[in-house]
Amino acid sequence: MSHEALLLGIDAGGTSTRAVLTDSRGECLGYGIGGRGNPISAGPERAADGVLEAIGRALQPSGASLADIAVVTPAMAGSRASGDHTWLHSRLMREGFAGRLVFESDLLAAYFSGSASPFGYALVSGTGACVVRVRDGRIDGTGDGLGWLLGDRGSGFWIGHAIARAVVQDLDRTGPATALTGQVLDHYDLVPSESVVQGRSGALDALIEALYSRPPIELAALAPFAFDQPDPVAEGILRDAGRHLADTLAAVLAGPGPLVIGGSVLSRTGPVRDSFLERLGAAAEGLDLLPVGDGAIGAAFLAVRAAGGEPDAETLDALTRTISRFR
Amino acid sequence: MSHEALLLGIDAGGTSTRAVLTDSRGECLGYGIGGRGNPISAGPERAADGVLEAIGRALQPSGASLADIAVVTPAMAGSRASGDHTWLHSRLMREGFAGRLVFESDLLAAYFSGSASPFGYALVSGTGACVVRVRDGRIDGTGDGLGWLLGDRGSGFWIGHAIARAVVQDLDRTGPATALTGQVLDHYDLVPSESVVQGRSGALDALIEALYSRPPIELAALAPFAFDQPDPVAEGILRDAGRHLADTLAAVLAGPGPLVIGGSVLSRTGPVRDSFLERLGAAAEGLDLLPVGDGAIGAAFLAVRAAGGEPDAETLDALTRTISRFR
Repeated sequence: MSHEALLLGIDAGGTSTRAVLTDSRGECLGYGIGGRGNPISAGPERAADGVLEAIGRALQPSGASLADIAVVTPAMAGSRASGDHTWLHSRLMREGFAGRLVFESDLLAAYFSGSASPFGYALVSGTGACVVRVRDGRIDGTGDGLGWLLGDRGSGFWIGHAIARAVVQDLDRTGPATALTGQVLDHYDLVPSESVVQGRSGALDALIEALYSRPPIELAALAPFAFDQPDPVAEGILRDAGRHLADTLAAVLAGPGPLVIGGSVLSRTGPVRDSFLERLGAAAEGLDLLPVGDGAIGAAFLAVRAAGGEPDAETLDALTRTISRFR
Repeated sequence: MSHEALLLGIDAGGTSTRAVLTDSRGECLGYGIGGRGNPISAGPERAADGVLEAIGRALQPSGASLADIAVVTPAMAGSRASGDHTWLHSRLMREGFAGRLVFESDLLAAYFSGSASPFGYALVSGTGACVVRVRDGRIDGTGDGLGWLLGDRGSGFWIGHAIARAVVQDLDRTGPATALTGQVLDHYDLVPSESVVQGRSGALDALIEALYSRPPIELAALAPFAFDQPDPVAEGILRDAGRHLADTLAAVLAGPGPLVIGGSVLSRTGPVRDSFLERLGAAAEGLDLLPVGDGAIGAAFLAVRAAGGEPDAETLDALTRTISRFR
């Protein structure tokens, strides 16, 4: 092993965990994928398993062990709230780790996966939706990220929820007809029915039952239907989503800078992106839209910083380039 | 006991059950209140307890028993779906009941508690919101009633949900400041805090935790705050609610008639009612707005019909007048 400090950046997510082994210049020396890594959703034991699994695979190519690691930087949702990190620290120490464990926000890691600038913005719209403003390399402003019940306006859940509401309003005729209705009925293996009981269609009753028998968050699975086809109702929903995302960004805007875009909702061109840019108007001109990278790259960038380095565009470039050897 | 047919109308609700003992002319001979009577929310055993309790009290003044009853008409939410009525029938038979058991919709009972006309509308906006069109004395059109996740636009839940979202948007500054914020923080025993973590106020984090730790439907408890004080955000929410209720009614409107209004949202004068009537415009002129009565009166009206009678305005008037002896 070299005597250069070795660092681990980890993107610990709700469905999988990715780990990057790097040196302080951003040279990637290994990459590993593990299971669920968020202790809030997966439970601490299982989350630690996921993180250790990803680390084990990231260490393999170099033959390094946890005893060689100076800093581990897991980036994850809810990192603010979870002050107690023993769930992971004790497990790392058992494997010989004697370095520092520095938790970071997954949103900050998302930002630094796409930009090395100390000032800028990240907008992530996947199942949820959140915007952060980064200043001096730290989050100093947050918009939305309020969850499915209270916010996440313009997120995949928000779009899926709007689709479900549009479909039930089509079926009970309080709203316009939409091609989404057939797709959603199909999705739940329901057939359009001619039966009407007390002025209400049998298909509507069956759909209501199907929708209420599942956790609300699963409505996010309907979101892709809005992107699939030209339909005025679907397009209206997507344009509303774009406007909501623009309004959330506008609430934290404080001058021009890079805007790192994550999540599937705003990444593709089309109605969401069009109405997002229209709504931002002149403010959009000062923004440099960049695609989000692998969150583990941003976490590795933050690990370099936590080790006392001063990571910059060159570091991010090196990480992005050298990680491709292992993925 | 007289040889006149005795009938029981029952309003079986999620929180309490009321029973009216009547003859076929609408002469009320007893009134009783019992516990929860909806088998979907309370479970069949407990619901049957609630119904039997109300019946027992309604029979007391006259000394009648269930063996004397020709028809029992329970009105309840979800009566369409629950085809199997043995949960109640077996219990009634055990007490000597040998008559007919005829389930009806709680919305139809609400309608006939306020109007005897065979054509008209009922709009109920309490925790949920639903409109029915009645033709030839039966429900032949339904608008909304889609539940908290998919509809109930303009309901108490809808207003409470809008309040919660307005308050979190005030706290994260993606929305305007509102006096509702102080009331809602108070409601959850939270104090406005100066602490800011990653650009987010400590009060907001605490509020989010409080709101997600409860069943969503409890947001309906926030609705009264919007009515309490002059505040532009609160007034905007109430005016939106009124418009939603008007749109739901408009979707089932098919000519002039009585409109029976139930639930607390639209019963009081103020922004909801004002914007409701504005939105309806000329259509409002053909509607005769009537207050809902006790749902058990409507159920008794339906019991008279189920017994082969032809209840009319006189029957409804007799029920409304004579029930006051027992309440």
